[in-house]
Amino acid sequence: MDKILRINMTTQEVKVEPVPGKYAALGGRALTSQFVLDEVEPTCDPLGPFNKLIYAPGLLSGTSAPSSGRLSVGGKSPLTGTIKESNAGGISSQKLANLGYKAVIVEGQAPKGEFYLISITPAGVKLEPAGDLTGKGGYDTVALCREKFGQKVGVIFIGPAGEMLMANAGVGTNDGEGNASRYAGRGGLGAVMGSKGLKAIIIDSPTTFDVPVKDPERFKAAARKFAKILLDHPVCGSGLPSYGTNVLMNIINEAGTLPTRNFRFGRFDKASEVSGEKLAEVAVARGGKATHACHPGCVMRCSNVYPMPNGKVCAPIEYESAWGFGPNLEVSDLDDVAMMNWLCNDIGLDTIDAGATLGVLMEAGVIPFGDGKAAIKALEEVYTGSPLGRIIGSGTTFAGKLYGVTRVPTVKGQAIPAYDPRSCRGNGVTYATTTMGADHTAGYAVTANILKVGGFVEPTSDQGQIELSRNLQIATAAVDSTGLCLFIAFAVLDNPEGLPTVVEMLNAMYGTSLTTDDVVALGQSVLKNERAFNAKAGFTKADDRLPEFFYNEELAPHNTKFALRDELDEVFNF
Amino acid sequence: MDKILRINMTTQEVKVEPVPGKYAALGGRALTSQFVLDEVEPTCDPLGPFNKLIYAPGLLSGTSAPSSGRLSVGGKSPLTGTIKESNAGGISSQKLANLGYKAVIVEGQAPKGEFYLISITPAGVKLEPAGDLTGKGGYDTVALCREKFGQKVGVIFIGPAGEMLMANAGVGTNDGEGNASRYAGRGGLGAVMGSKGLKAIIIDSPTTFDVPVKDPERFKAAARKFAKILLDHPVCGSGLPSYGTNVLMNIINEAGTLPTRNFRFGRFDKASEVSGEKLAEVAVARGGKATHACHPGCVMRCSNVYPMPNGKVCAPIEYESAWGFGPNLEVSDLDDVAMMNWLCNDIGLDTIDAGATLGVLMEAGVIPFGDGKAAIKALEEVYTGSPLGRIIGSGTTFAGKLYGVTRVPTVKGQAIPAYDPRSCRGNGVTYATTTMGADHTAGYAVTANILKVGGFVEPTSDQGQIELSRNLQIATAAVDSTGLCLFIAFAVLDNPEGLPTVVEMLNAMYGTSLTTDDVVALGQSVLKNERAFNAKAGFTKADDRLPEFFYNEELAPHNTKFALRDELDEVFNF
Repeated sequence: MDKILRINMTTQEVKVEPVPGKYAALGGRALTSQFVLDEVEPTCDPLGPFNKLIYAPGLLSGTSAPSSGRLSVGGKSPLTGTIKESNAGGISSQKLANLGYKAVIVEGQAPKGEFYLISITPAGVKLEPAGDLTGKGGYDTVALCREKFGQKVGVIFIGPAGEMLMANAGVGTNDGEGNASRYAGRGGLGAVMGSKGLKAIIIDSPTTFDVPVKDPERFKAAARKFAKILLDHPVCGSGLPSYGTNVLMNIINEAGTLPTRNFRFGRFDKASEVSGEKLAEVAVARGGKATHACHPGCVMRCSNVYPMPNGKVCAPIEYESAWGFGPNLEVSDLDDVAMMNWLCNDIGLDTIDAGATLGVLMEAGVIPFGDGKAAIKALEEVYTGSPLGRIIGSGTTFAGKLYGVTRVPTVKGQAIPAYDPRSCRGNGVTYATTTMGADHTAGYAVTANILKVGGFVEPTSDQGQIELSRNLQIATAAVDSTGLCLFIAFAVLDNPEGLPTVVEMLNAMYGTSLTTDDVVALGQSVLKNERAFNAKAGFTKADDRLPEFFYNEELAPHNTKFALRDELDEVFNF
Repeated sequence: MDKILRINMTTQEVKVEPVPGKYAALGGRALTSQFVLDEVEPTCDPLGPFNKLIYAPGLLSGTSAPSSGRLSVGGKSPLTGTIKESNAGGISSQKLANLGYKAVIVEGQAPKGEFYLISITPAGVKLEPAGDLTGKGGYDTVALCREKFGQKVGVIFIGPAGEMLMANAGVGTNDGEGNASRYAGRGGLGAVMGSKGLKAIIIDSPTTFDVPVKDPERFKAAARKFAKILLDHPVCGSGLPSYGTNVLMNIINEAGTLPTRNFRFGRFDKASEVSGEKLAEVAVARGGKATHACHPGCVMRCSNVYPMPNGKVCAPIEYESAWGFGPNLEVSDLDDVAMMNWLCNDIGLDTIDAGATLGVLMEAGVIPFGDGKAAIKALEEVYTGSPLGRIIGSGTTFAGKLYGVTRVPTVKGQAIPAYDPRSCRGNGVTYATTTMGADHTAGYAVTANILKVGGFVEPTSDQGQIELSRNLQIATAAVDSTGLCLFIAFAVLDNPEGLPTVVEMLNAMYGTSLTTDDVVALGQSVLKNERAFNAKAGFTKADDRLPEFFYNEELAPHNTKFALRDELDEVFNF
């Protein structure tokens, strides 16, 4: 990974540059955030010519390190106004890395209404008009690209929502079977891609695991050891591979922190009907799969393949998506949930914010709570760009503003996901303070709060939550830089061999002599960069708070409110 | 004015309180902003129970001081998120002052969907259900209130937009003839009033000019002198009374700073068709009025009464409204302009932001530029609360976000009015830095930039604009505290006797010995309070900038861009 690909959509110039020394030790989120800080004016219009979009494999992507195929996408977010890194599985990260690209930087913008595609192959890089891909949904886009460029290509794409510049549009990629369903969904980077006039990037690489490694034997040993560490952990080796992330539905419901009816209650009496267990049963009965890997070399295989009665296939249904379209809307029909998920994949919307948006529209009385069919119909309007479609595609905060709703579950413009902050307070600290706008993956305190992974911190107490979230946010920023899936954290938190083995893989690959302290330092420096960008963009501690109603409304069954305010300013004490 | 009326909409408690010493020397904007800073948590949800809405007459309101009938309305804005003071003419300020009320504070909120009205009469204060007023447009609301409470009452009201909590809803009042058309329009305080469950405040006072004055003879002499100063000035005594504020249309067009086609050009070839001269001609020919006073005792009489072919009457059409619905949309049919203005008065929307919103929707291709009839039809959707109606009613920034438009002329969420900042740069400085979000009235540099009132500062040069805007912002904050109409500033800026005479009126009324320096200090302290609130609400210098396109697009005919950035931070150097 010794090249950077820089494409200017205004001039149509395609340049391959060497990697400046400053960026050599960075990958994934560390790299995209550094580029954004260095090259994007923090007050620029996210959809204007001065924003940039950066795609980067992680430090370990494209090697045999298990579960290391995450692709980071970075830029300034039109949803939050903050810096944004959103990452996804799928096969594009490994292919980019195997072609030697450390990052792809897209800048400028094509003339309004024109769309292009970039193909990156061993033969070179080509920028060409997107032609009949323009206007196509995610599924057709990937199918057409595979038809034209070969069945093994990775496709990074946007759906109609991204083309229409909707603030909740995500950046999609495909898995090995061509499912257009792995999303760097959060924060509207799909609209940034749309604003550049870029419909898709096609990546064709003959290899997947052959990124050069300094000491192959040492690397192989460390990777083998790391795979065993993952497989030995009950979550990584057993829970996730059995039922996928939606194994959480019953657990979070039982814990009383499953946001129900737009965060009105902490339990949903029909949660089991949309749970991972139920999903696995129905999927398998219909010829789908309860378990499935989103990229080659993943040992956790937390994905799934869910055939719907209408003949379409949704792959996968993640827990947070099932929550957003299920309990959050008081919808308990799994096929309705799957259809909403499928629609978001096709339209190109983030499922978490789409679910939360529908919840706010139900709060406003535009759609009845519990009416899955009405929610599907509303979601379908996004294709047409009708006023309601625009409202839905623009995310939760704008929908709330337009209907004068005060119960709007967002921080810095981005929707709070599937764990209520009042009874999973570590996550509440993360939602409030992360540089990304509300994001569970930025510091997933469900571990210690609910799952008793990495210790236990009482979820309805304020005690210990600041420190818990801080440490998780630092660790996450580091993990997001390696290309490793965040789910390795379950094993790393519980197994003292975990982190040293990640460091061993990095040292074997790069010939470095990093320590575990260096990994912590990397995570801290990523967060500092992101905070610096946000401060220049105008964010202050006033933005590091939860919405008013979490402080004033009790959540059943624990009858608890969120109370942390000024303490939140202590999260970033480094 | 020795009483404060405090009404809690949650508990329905009505309290009359004495005026604490801290507030005794304050009125109008100085008073509302001090109350908001002292009593409203800056990070609160503007539409939630913790915001407050404060109505206050100015220090000179209810006396014979000429043109002193402005009513200030203050709170936290749902449009901008900043502190907000918006003021209006009409007859309510004088009546409130004559009943002895220095301020009315509305707090808490009624149960969702319930609307109330407050009547304030010499017999006392009553809070009662709004009954059949609920859902009514502004014109019917005022007519029904005058029917029920008498033809002479002042009515402070919201239209359907305020009831539906739309972020661009204004607070309306009536003139002496019952026209429901004087708006404290900017910043969405109508939605705050709606969120409280308050449809209208009816004020009945037998007197208009009888607020007690310490030294009546001295006061009368000063007031007479001030009236003469106004009448002797070419703008206050001649320009405004002849053609109203729309006398500016041809002047601003000639100056090449008339924003046309959503700020694409600085001149509109059909400007004269919607000018004040044309308006006067048509209005008089149809039996309307070219000149009219919005409140008793105004010597400038800058209002007008415009009968439309459909039988409705729009009174008045201000320059900024005529601009928003005319040149900004490339509409040159004065009847179309009048109809959009009438609709905003009835629906209860701010005309400036409504015009700018329609401009952004035209930029997005939702409505064709130049099509007044289509714009009228779109505006009518606001009544129904349809998705498009919600988008229009929520103001320019949200419309821009929903359609991914980057040419969105707003600062801090509020639309830039009728003077392009590139070729009237003093106004540009005001738009960027005022505590209110873009607002021409906050520091009206058109005076020295275009009208050569109070000296001359070359409008397309950066030289002198910071100081010009600073001084005007300070002066304006003081004027807005007196209840005097801002238009007195034309005379005060040119006549060295002007400011001392205002001070003389204040001293005669209150028995004080203020100097002109004290007036400057008052203005500065108002701005400091407002800045303090905004800083706590999370605003930084990153918010004190114009939208990107003003820095990057040249404006014809002067082919000039806005260039001031860091210099803007020097405006508040006191």
